[in-house]
Amino acid sequence: MVGIGPGSKQGRTHQAETAIKQSDIVFGYKRYIELANDLLEGKEVVPSGMRQEVDRCLAALQKANSGNKVTILSSGDPGVYGMAGLVLELAHEKGFTFPIEIVAGVSAANAAAASLGAPLMCDYACISLSDLLVPWEQIRRRLEKVAEADLVVALYNPRSKKRVKQLAEAADIFRQHRSEQTPVGVATSVGTEEEHTIISTLASFLDLDIGMRSIVIIGNSTSKVYDDVFITQRGYNV
Amino acid sequence: MVGIGPGSKQGRTHQAETAIKQSDIVFGYKRYIELANDLLEGKEVVPSGMRQEVDRCLAALQKANSGNKVTILSSGDPGVYGMAGLVLELAHEKGFTFPIEIVAGVSAANAAAASLGAPLMCDYACISLSDLLVPWEQIRRRLEKVAEADLVVALYNPRSKKRVKQLAEAADIFRQHRSEQTPVGVATSVGTEEEHTIISTLASFLDLDIGMRSIVIIGNSTSKVYDDVFITQRGYNV
Repeated sequence: MVGIGPGSKQGRTHQAETAIKQSDIVFGYKRYIELANDLLEGKEVVPSGMRQEVDRCLAALQKANSGNKVTILSSGDPGVYGMAGLVLELAHEKGFTFPIEIVAGVSAANAAAASLGAPLMCDYACISLSDLLVPWEQIRRRLEKVAEADLVVALYNPRSKKRVKQLAEAADIFRQHRSEQTPVGVATSVGTEEEHTIISTLASFLDLDIGMRSIVIIGNSTSKVYDDVFITQRGYNV
Repeated sequence: MVGIGPGSKQGRTHQAETAIKQSDIVFGYKRYIELANDLLEGKEVVPSGMRQEVDRCLAALQKANSGNKVTILSSGDPGVYGMAGLVLELAHEKGFTFPIEIVAGVSAANAAAASLGAPLMCDYACISLSDLLVPWEQIRRRLEKVAEADLVVALYNPRSKKRVKQLAEAADIFRQHRSEQTPVGVATSVGTEEEHTIISTLASFLDLDIGMRSIVIIGNSTSKVYDDVFITQRGYNV
């Protein structure tokens, strides 16, 4: 279970590469397989489409149980909205006892933050706006508490072509607790050639081009924008 | 401004190594300098002790302003309780206009989570219990909101020899909102030879050996422990 960081080879750790090199069979979304292409020569590769998570993890576990060294690729960190939990849970259900290593990667929020400046410097929360696996009422309640707590928030899966109202509701919630001028950063396709970032405000960020490959970071009361850099202050006397 | 991940060479990304190799002068805590020793041959190295953050960052910025290529090393991710924000803020204050690159690394919470299983699978918050730079009342309020929101939390700087009451108060807050049997994972010195992890419960984790190199992860209502693996469920039908 290996996270290869966001985007390109540049974001991969040695640990991730070592794990991939040592495996016989590599599973993963087609896009993640492409990102690790330089490491896959001579290996059996099993690419898959979206929304086949349980089937893909089960197939990988069964291959491992037959004695193969198997990697399931994840972009970013497999332990954050990735497959790590599902793999461990399925292994438990099936009574598999072979060792499973989780290799952490740089998660999308951290990579997005670095491209925007340093908005996650102090305490922060990560919340996914996808209500496919978690009821929207629960996500909404989390957004409210995080907004009340003056925590910076990194929103994963903020908006898709079909799912637009969640981000608008999130913006409404934060506007009730924070100034309209609170900085909001949007980083899309971080680490790839298509990477683009923009810094806006709570008042107007909804108009930006935001999709499933975007991370939206909403600042708190100590967040600032200097020129094109988004920072959250931690309390040093400067 | 480069994050070298937690612990050892294994956690470093290509991007971090490229940035270090391209620099003439490397600043950082003594311990972080040691972690990157294999990359520092022929470079000017400026090690420093704890609590000289502003001076160290200013010295590094002045060297860069004189035309040197400078790296400030951070363990983990420099954008999470690291030096990235301070560096960007000081550069703005001083009117420096040379480019500053922030290189994200695997943050301690993500590395700790991978060693414990997959506790950060769904929404979560990172909160530092150090009240050196942030007033305790503000940290306390954030803990309360996060506890109410049923968010998993990763606690940075949970306890030191001199500072013990904050973690006890945090435990009290979470016990008011979550079952005593909620899983709590403690991972210490992750990525190093001294790494050790233990999984306990909200009722009894305070008795564990927890220090400044530990990360404490408190689960939520969907967290489970299977044998020695700590998982937070995301809602897949298994």
